[in-house]
Amino acid sequence: MDDTSRRDVLRRLAYVEGHLAGVRKMVEQDQYCVDILKQTFAIRRAIEKLEAKMLDGHLHSCVVEGIEGGESERVIGELLDLYTLNRR
Amino acid sequence: MDDTSRRDVLRRLAYVEGHLAGVRKMVEQDQYCVDILKQTFAIRRAIEKLEAKMLDGHLHSCVVEGIEGGESERVIGELLDLYTLNRR
Amino acid sequence: MDDTSRRDVLRRLAYVEGHLAGVRKMVEQDQYCVDILKQTFAIRRAIEKLEAKMLDGHLHSCVVEGIEGGESERVIGELLDLYTLNRR
Amino acid sequence: MDDTSRRDVLRRLAYVEGHLAGVRKMVEQDQYCVDILKQTFAIRRAIEKLEAKMLDGHLHSCVVEGIEGGESERVIGELLDLYTLNRR
Repeated sequence: MDDTSRRDVLRRLAYVEGHLAGVRKMVEQDQYCVDILKQTFAIRRAIEKLEAKMLDGHLHSCVVEGIEGGESERVIGELLDLYTLNRR
Repeated sequence: MDDTSRRDVLRRLAYVEGHLAGVRKMVEQDQYCVDILKQTFAIRRAIEKLEAKMLDGHLHSCVVEGIEGGESERVIGELLDLYTLNRR
Repeated sequence: MDDTSRRDVLRRLAYVEGHLAGVRKMVEQDQYCVDILKQTFAIRRAIEKLEAKMLDGHLHSCVVEGIEGGESERVIGELLDLYTLNRR
Repeated sequence: MDDTSRRDVLRRLAYVEGHLAGVRKMVEQDQYCVDILKQTFAIRRAIEKLEAKMLDGHLHSCVVEGIEGGESERVIGELLDLYTLNRR
């Protein structure tokens, strides 16, 4: 990852950590489950956006370099692994 | 949420927070994006399990009580909202 | 399902079947994979909307009646099964 | 797509079409919504497997050739579009 991307990812991680601390407080204060679930859904969406950013960077750097460097089998195998893992 | 469920949810939240701290370290150390993505996928799955636990408790308590207490429109509306939000 | 819902679901199924026949044609004509994938994504979204309609009807009828009739364990167990299956 | 892949994709499409016809019959016979939903979930999973096959072929052919042919911006842009569309 280049410096700009890393800073962006770290900023997004800090946001997720803060959001998660808020959820912990909601659980400790015994707030309504439906409201807590709406927050955890939002946290997962924030993580997905962070993943999209990392994937974008990965495709533009490692994947292009890997394929140009004759390692297409490895980089494509990794992408297919990620695809399968992501769908569970 | 009853006490046992709340403790379980808090334990799962602590696990997610620890996992997220590990991801932050991986990003700071500039580890391979593919490895970081595998970890964030695992974090989302852990959050989904926590959500399933909360939904289980919610259905067995608030939803049953709401319907028995004549508030079926409200509790079912909330479930459909959650369903839509979850699919985005 | 009441008659209006059933007609709506059948109409949506006919749409999905037509869309799928279009995809088959695209594959037979060897069209670009990226374009075919965009169509299969749209088909899955159409199926998800159909599912949301069926779930809506199910919650408003069978679930309310089941809980009022003292069968909350069964109907809630079924909802949790669906939730788990849907997340795979 | 090469011939073997196309035949595989067409075979999978035929399976999905048959499965969908079964669901239509279930709806027409007014079968239990929960049972119908389990079938539509299975249909979406079958479509996802078909998509994974197509993506596999796409990465190994068009993406590698595109990057080697100096069109990395285009093929990577398409992959990111698919990723976003797939997550909605």
